[in-house]
Amino acid sequence: MSEAIIFDTDPGVDDAQAIAIALRHPDIELLGMTTTFGNVDADTATHNALLLAELAGHEIPVAQGAAAPMVKPRHPAPAHIHGANGLGDIALPAVQGRADPRDAARFIVDTVNARPGEVTLVAVGPLGNLAAALQLEPALIDRVKRVVVMGGSIREGGNVTPVAEANIFNDPHAARRVLTAGWPLTLVGLDATHRCVLDPARMARIAAGQGRLGEVLADSYAFYRDFYREMLGIDGCCPHDSCALAWLLRPELFTTARGHLTVATEGEAEGQTVFAPENRGYIEPRWSRTPLVDVCLGADGEGVVEWIAETLA
Amino acid sequence: MSEAIIFDTDPGVDDAQAIAIALRHPDIELLGMTTTFGNVDADTATHNALLLAELAGHEIPVAQGAAAPMVKPRHPAPAHIHGANGLGDIALPAVQGRADPRDAARFIVDTVNARPGEVTLVAVGPLGNLAAALQLEPALIDRVKRVVVMGGSIREGGNVTPVAEANIFNDPHAARRVLTAGWPLTLVGLDATHRCVLDPARMARIAAGQGRLGEVLADSYAFYRDFYREMLGIDGCCPHDSCALAWLLRPELFTTARGHLTVATEGEAEGQTVFAPENRGYIEPRWSRTPLVDVCLGADGEGVVEWIAETLA
Ligand SMILES: [Ca+2]
Ligand SMILES: [Ca+2]
Repeated sequence: MSEAIIFDTDPGVDDAQAIAIALRHPDIELLGMTTTFGNVDADTATHNALLLAELAGHEIPVAQGAAAPMVKPRHPAPAHIHGANGLGDIALPAVQGRADPRDAARFIVDTVNARPGEVTLVAVGPLGNLAAALQLEPALIDRVKRVVVMGGSIREGGNVTPVAEANIFNDPHAARRVLTAGWPLTLVGLDATHRCVLDPARMARIAAGQGRLGEVLADSYAFYRDFYREMLGIDGCCPHDSCALAWLLRPELFTTARGHLTVATEGEAEGQTVFAPENRGYIEPRWSRTPLVDVCLGADGEGVVEWIAETLA
Repeated sequence: MSEAIIFDTDPGVDDAQAIAIALRHPDIELLGMTTTFGNVDADTATHNALLLAELAGHEIPVAQGAAAPMVKPRHPAPAHIHGANGLGDIALPAVQGRADPRDAARFIVDTVNARPGEVTLVAVGPLGNLAAALQLEPALIDRVKRVVVMGGSIREGGNVTPVAEANIFNDPHAARRVLTAGWPLTLVGLDATHRCVLDPARMARIAAGQGRLGEVLADSYAFYRDFYREMLGIDGCCPHDSCALAWLLRPELFTTARGHLTVATEGEAEGQTVFAPENRGYIEPRWSRTPLVDVCLGADGEGVVEWIAETLA
């Protein structure tokens, strides 16, 4: 059965690979991409989304959205991780197509309304676009099929602060709005994605299997890999954003728990996802008040990276 | 070599057991106890500390301290965990002795100043007394031998909120003051104490080995055990506070990491200990700015509970 998705993204090296999967996998119907600031600024995100679709030989609507967080000031994009151009500073061909005239939030609302109950939102960047869509159309929570968010960390610790993951940290207020909205939602965070390390051998298979797109993925990956080697001492990268699609199509590769989720928006733990397992009582009801969601607490890392390599090789 | 300690406590069932260890272990010289609100109110804490020392046949100074948090309003003590009297609501004998006329902070300052470089502060309740002592005498940070704090949680999740441990949650501002003071400090939190489960068989050995004190420990333990069975589904209790003494005398039973620690004082993650491992960089220096401390990330649970049982049997 095919999954109709909107892919909300800030490409980004690991976004690029996930986009390639969304474009190629026979069980995914990619209805469009919406772009946000995050790994790069919003214009660059849109450029990269258009480019990656063109390299794959597809025409897919790309609608640009949030250029900055809802409340907090914007942090500069971390050029040492994804490169200033978001794809490891490799030379990129010119883009032919243009973005959809609608902004991301309107595109999401229109697309979901056109196929109520059928569309899954897969969000792998800061969550401003989904928050804006909810503001335009609160009834969206009953019209999407599901929301899958790559972001957050329950027990794993963070990657931009000791407790916060980058997508949530980049816009904690939007994240709180989206993660507590009351729609069917799965969080795929660092507890799962850090179990998955895409090694150079599998990356070579991907490079060989995707033509010009494969070269872009492989070359940008090499840049991203330097960051992982220096910062984390591992030879390979965590394919964070691809994990959201892996969960969608191969949920059996993940362990999940159901519970109440919220987000710390201020202070030392800013951007942390706070998860209260269902049926676990705490001294105050406030931690168990938000709607129930599913969060990933682990993954069969080898299974996930092999699924990625198979899909793209 | 004997460790001279001041034991700062809010007894409390697991405090009571740790007090028994501090009174009995040949390698501990217990210079005094300081009491705080927490598991019980401050008056009850002082009563219990005096009583436990008397049951063990010791005369130990007990100085009463904080009756409430530094900044936040006080939560009522959780009577369903430790009982309204802090010792499982069992009948208790009358207390003969009286508290030291000094308050806890003054007692700490005087006692440390009398033996500079020799005294270890072992704190197993909310940290208001240590914070107050630092306010009386900031130079304390260079005069204590070490500070051992039972509190916090790095990766384990919390026990009163999804992310916060009770001692830190009960006074997060005091905790931040104490944990970032720049003295030699070890945090023994839930990452270690949840590995340790004191089973009924070992508790029976303890009850048999301690006379009237053993009966009090065993009877109060039975109340505490009900809480663990209902809330966590385990048959036995985590001897949180005894773990701080176990670390002091048997550090090889624990795995520790060095890094920067701070505490979230507001919002959804209020009371969480935020730990940035040494040499791990984050996008902003603020998480790596506090003085280095050692935190326990795990424990040989069987080794720890056997050490407790051997000490008290
Ligand atoms: Ca991304
Ligand atoms: Ca205690």
